[in-house]
Amino acid sequence: MISVLLVGKGNVATHLYNTFLSVDTIVFTQISSRKLEHIPKADITIIAVSDDAIAEVSSKIKNPFVVHTSGSCSINELKNATNKGVFYMLQTFSKDKKVDFNEVPFCLEADNESNYLLLEELAKLIGKKIYAVNSEQRKALHVAAVFVNNFTNHMYKIGNDVCNEYHVPFEILQPLIKETALKIETLSPEKAQTGPAIRNDKRTIKNHLDLLNNEQQKIYKIITKSIQNGN
Amino acid sequence: MISVLLVGKGNVATHLYNTFLSVDTIVFTQISSRKLEHIPKADITIIAVSDDAIAEVSSKIKNPFVVHTSGSCSINELKNATNKGVFYMLQTFSKDKKVDFNEVPFCLEADNESNYLLLEELAKLIGKKIYAVNSEQRKALHVAAVFVNNFTNHMYKIGNDVCNEYHVPFEILQPLIKETALKIETLSPEKAQTGPAIRNDKRTIKNHLDLLNNEQQKIYKIITKSIQNGN
Repeated sequence: MISVLLVGKGNVATHLYNTFLSVDTIVFTQISSRKLEHIPKADITIIAVSDDAIAEVSSKIKNPFVVHTSGSCSINELKNATNKGVFYMLQTFSKDKKVDFNEVPFCLEADNESNYLLLEELAKLIGKKIYAVNSEQRKALHVAAVFVNNFTNHMYKIGNDVCNEYHVPFEILQPLIKETALKIETLSPEKAQTGPAIRNDKRTIKNHLDLLNNEQQKIYKIITKSIQNGN
Repeated sequence: MISVLLVGKGNVATHLYNTFLSVDTIVFTQISSRKLEHIPKADITIIAVSDDAIAEVSSKIKNPFVVHTSGSCSINELKNATNKGVFYMLQTFSKDKKVDFNEVPFCLEADNESNYLLLEELAKLIGKKIYAVNSEQRKALHVAAVFVNNFTNHMYKIGNDVCNEYHVPFEILQPLIKETALKIETLSPEKAQTGPAIRNDKRTIKNHLDLLNNEQQKIYKIITKSIQNGN
């Protein structure tokens, strides 16, 4: 049996709450980060609050082992006087969509071996994909996630804008979007690259630029150049 | 019964060949674009050759209705003296991977209504997703496809490079990549956007830039700005 205290009521906390409740071997309590007068004891205290609140909330907790769930904060942003760790789940959590925790990578860190094993034990009770990731690696993952998620989504946005401009349904592109993402499971992005930039097909590139507005052209040019330079 | 002549032996031609063979109501012949001395008659002649060869190959064909399969070429690049059309399938075709034609959008164009209906009849025999798309719209689709496929893949490439640089496995990002692509089936890209750029989280953006090399920083900055400007 592992006892877990979850501090926070936000998006990540809610998804964790639902999955913890479904496991018999987890003794589980949840409190709001605004009510820290009486803090229940627990083997692992998970602070699932905004990055800015981690220091303050953790400073008020005297439980033996306190972890946060942030991708961009170092383990040292925890200000409790006891042991520290990180329980970072790298996935987009949407409010109304159920999360399949078997598909969520758990990126774990702790300030000593036995605490790491305790975190791993907890993660294995709700998920399958477990990784030891230190604070520097987690920061790198967080930047990489911005590229593959936020920036990729912006590529979809520009594709959508071009479709709207020329009155063609964006849904035509959806099978391609899906296939592009699935391809990367078996092929490196470098090997998966196709299109006019990598072929240096100047005629097609010129034709494309003619169809775009100024802002879209800037992005088209810089990414095309980056593909051609291999960086 | 529809009789189809397929000209070309490349990637797209091979996938079409395999699917046409599986349909009883299509009478089907394939020839190489290098052997155009004896051209079999057919209701629809599909030229599946490289963009640069479309004009020359089509000029040698006297069959009643000739179409090409290119996303970036106008219907007018066909130089046959008879009827013209386009049979464009918007999907990435990989050599060794079977294509599920039910998931492929067929973008059709013809220079008259009855030929359009004939093309549509053919497309319905092998697929499900049929769209009438004129030459200007198809060009726009082609640019949009570069953004959602080539450029998205380059975002994966940069994410992969950052992971390599900091010794963290890229596979941790794969569930996020998949979820990002699937989200767009139910949410517009504008509504799906999350992350430090859209929140204007200056501290996180600065931390991210510190981790990147010069070329990566340039791309990070221009896309972040574009997300913030809503363009």
